[in-house]
Amino acid sequence: MKLLRVYFGEKEKHRGRPLFEYLTRLAYEEGMKGVTVFKGVMGFGEKRHVHRSDFFSISADLPMVVEIFDTDEKIATFIEKVKELKFDGLVVVLDAEGFHM
Amino acid sequence: MKLLRVYFGEKEKHRGRPLFEYLTRLAYEEGMKGVTVFKGVMGFGEKRHVHRSDFFSISADLPMVVEIFDTDEKIATFIEKVKELKFDGLVVVLDAEGFHM
Amino acid sequence: MKLLRVYFGEKEKHRGRPLFEYLTRLAYEEGMKGVTVFKGVMGFGEKRHVHRSDFFSISADLPMVVEIFDTDEKIATFIEKVKELKFDGLVVVLDAEGFHM
Repeated sequence: MKLLRVYFGEKEKHRGRPLFEYLTRLAYEEGMKGVTVFKGVMGFGEKRHVHRSDFFSISADLPMVVEIFDTDEKIATFIEKVKELKFDGLVVVLDAEGFHM
Repeated sequence: MKLLRVYFGEKEKHRGRPLFEYLTRLAYEEGMKGVTVFKGVMGFGEKRHVHRSDFFSISADLPMVVEIFDTDEKIATFIEKVKELKFDGLVVVLDAEGFHM
Repeated sequence: MKLLRVYFGEKEKHRGRPLFEYLTRLAYEEGMKGVTVFKGVMGFGEKRHVHRSDFFSISADLPMVVEIFDTDEKIATFIEKVKELKFDGLVVVLDAEGFHM
């Protein structure tokens, strides 16, 4: 089993709608179980490395993470679909065990 | 060492009290160290797979996760206690290293 | 690759500034990519194990976690810098795979 975490800024959109909504719906349609979305209070990614005096204003675009727990195969398939999208973000995969209550 | 993550909806209760309070207190009584509770902004679990036009209203019951870092043995014991409870949720265990400051 | 999670209370400070700001800036200066800060809704750590009747008031100092994804080497270097600081907290490291979009 894998725990997938997809990180991006809350302003990221896909076809005019928030990316987190798109990813959540995609996960739903793919039959994934155990999808959770968290919003952070600050963050920066690979492409937001601009130094500026008002450093902490970079958090205006708050980070979000969509987290999905599923089989290795379903996570791999989902990642392929994520790769087709265009956004600044980060994809992290962790080995995990677990079960639904 | 293990990092345990227990996911459920914020409306889940145990004996009339919020489940996250029960789990946090249980962790405290079991002598666990390093317990953190996060609230998500959206999510769905195994049993909330009902398709409806107002898809995103499913987030009315916001997801929560109780996260505990401890030894393999203490996490295993805690999971046995979690299994005795009745709630819709997800239990995920990750191998981890770490230390207290 | 590693996923680092550093947990502490939001009231922790370093040189008069919030610890989460210091850690985020340090990560930025070290060239880390993929830094996200989350705030929890409740938690306790190793040194807050005081039993009291108003148990849940311990959450007045809300937990925070600074999460960083980077190479094993850069995470190890960052952890050495974290160890030089003084705060009540928890450092957790997870094996991870991933990529930037």
